[in-house]
Amino acid sequence: MDFPDRIETGMQRTLRYATANGCPPLLAKALRHAVFPGGARIRPRLCLAVAAACGDREPLAADSAAVAIELLHCASLVHDDMPCFDNAMTRRGAPSVHAQFGEEIALLVGDGLIIAAFETVARETQQTPLLTAPLIATIANAVGSPYGLVAGQAWESEPEINITAYHRAKTASLFSGAVSTGAIASGGNPQEWLVLADALGAAYQVADDLYDAVGQSEAGKPAGQDSRNGKPNIVVSIGLEAALGRLKRLVAEAVDSVPDCPGAESFRAMIRNEATRLMPKTLATSAA
Amino acid sequence: MDFPDRIETGMQRTLRYATANGCPPLLAKALRHAVFPGGARIRPRLCLAVAAACGDREPLAADSAAVAIELLHCASLVHDDMPCFDNAMTRRGAPSVHAQFGEEIALLVGDGLIIAAFETVARETQQTPLLTAPLIATIANAVGSPYGLVAGQAWESEPEINITAYHRAKTASLFSGAVSTGAIASGGNPQEWLVLADALGAAYQVADDLYDAVGQSEAGKPAGQDSRNGKPNIVVSIGLEAALGRLKRLVAEAVDSVPDCPGAESFRAMIRNEATRLMPKTLATSAA
Repeated sequence: MDFPDRIETGMQRTLRYATANGCPPLLAKALRHAVFPGGARIRPRLCLAVAAACGDREPLAADSAAVAIELLHCASLVHDDMPCFDNAMTRRGAPSVHAQFGEEIALLVGDGLIIAAFETVARETQQTPLLTAPLIATIANAVGSPYGLVAGQAWESEPEINITAYHRAKTASLFSGAVSTGAIASGGNPQEWLVLADALGAAYQVADDLYDAVGQSEAGKPAGQDSRNGKPNIVVSIGLEAALGRLKRLVAEAVDSVPDCPGAESFRAMIRNEATRLMPKTLATSAA
Repeated sequence: MDFPDRIETGMQRTLRYATANGCPPLLAKALRHAVFPGGARIRPRLCLAVAAACGDREPLAADSAAVAIELLHCASLVHDDMPCFDNAMTRRGAPSVHAQFGEEIALLVGDGLIIAAFETVARETQQTPLLTAPLIATIANAVGSPYGLVAGQAWESEPEINITAYHRAKTASLFSGAVSTGAIASGGNPQEWLVLADALGAAYQVADDLYDAVGQSEAGKPAGQDSRNGKPNIVVSIGLEAALGRLKRLVAEAVDSVPDCPGAESFRAMIRNEATRLMPKTLATSAA
């Protein structure tokens, strides 16, 4: 199976467990709505690509980490869309979870997906028990407090925002988690992949800001939402041309930093390809 | 160390990690507010008591499970208190997290505590890797969808509520998780403890309903809140005397179902003692 198939198969299996017979019907519907159809699944593909580059030694463990990371990404979108944060009524061209199912269910869907993420890794690594704790600790670090997604979102409630810490926690941390868990699942050394993870995380942040400035983002949020919500956006700070230049430099840095490993060359090709996908279509030709 | 010391030491350690240098200050304050000072810590004490009854073979693993279960209980209180659910302004005699820090931070505190719970088990079981996955899977089952706390809360959003599934998911599941993880951490067989877990979970549900009817609950919610929120309450359904009778029968059932194990006798004594603590003080003498 290719990466997208492995990811969707894993997501389907986890959702079958989470919505099994006896689940409150609305919750079951809303859990599926939050996860299917997905966006670009960028983070889990990155996780599997790093695992493959390291030799794909334990594909089940890699799959479980990829699925967990995507579930946590989905959970963060559901909670971030809620009225107390972005109050976004649409997501990926459909109603957001709270818009369709109410705030109560949206809150519970986020909680349920976070729990399902860790449960998936525990369930799928029973045959590779030495991987369970490192994978879960790495994923928790990427999404929790003090340095993960939760902390990133919490910076928005501070009277003075630490921009570097904010971007690192809110965006780069989950890319880092995807890269690190991919390496861990294949017996690679996650330290060797940290520069790449940071560069890709920063590149994605720039790409997301570009999308916000010019149109639909990968995550399907409407254009201009950052400014409306008073959030920092690099295109607003340094302009479109400079932002595009930074994105190109970050992608080049990511390509250069791929460590020696069995699949290094095809991994580099994937990043270059991914960089084009990352960019808003209207900008892709000018940046290529 | 006795159980309460082990629990508080473990909670403090986990909160030190979650609020380490670099954490957004409000989030750090709110995470601590949600966890300290604690309530009766009934569930983690139960977890450690079962671990002790089974020989306390891996005390660090048992401690991590106990801490995780209490963190998840705290997370559920923070989210349940939010405006879209109970809209409770106080908790344990202090302002609830959303009342003191706002809805955004309350949502993130709940998320952060859920993540910290699984992170704690992963971190503290690195020396006992065969326990990591079973503990995390068991805990996730107790709090997630379709049968744990999240599902329990979601039943309140259904047009028709399945009362048995509701109580089992909302209250009994976390008692079950506490008992099962205590057994797992000591190499015991969690199946042998299921009857006890169910009886204690049901007993606690009755006790909580009694508190709601006559005064302050263990979790510090104001009297009469269930009726105001249209939630099922057994005292309203069958009356005070019958509810007290049911509580006594459930405690006796729990005592009778303690399996053969090294610490069975002291465990039985603990349940009898706990049953008195469970009951509102004004009722304890009449029920003893």
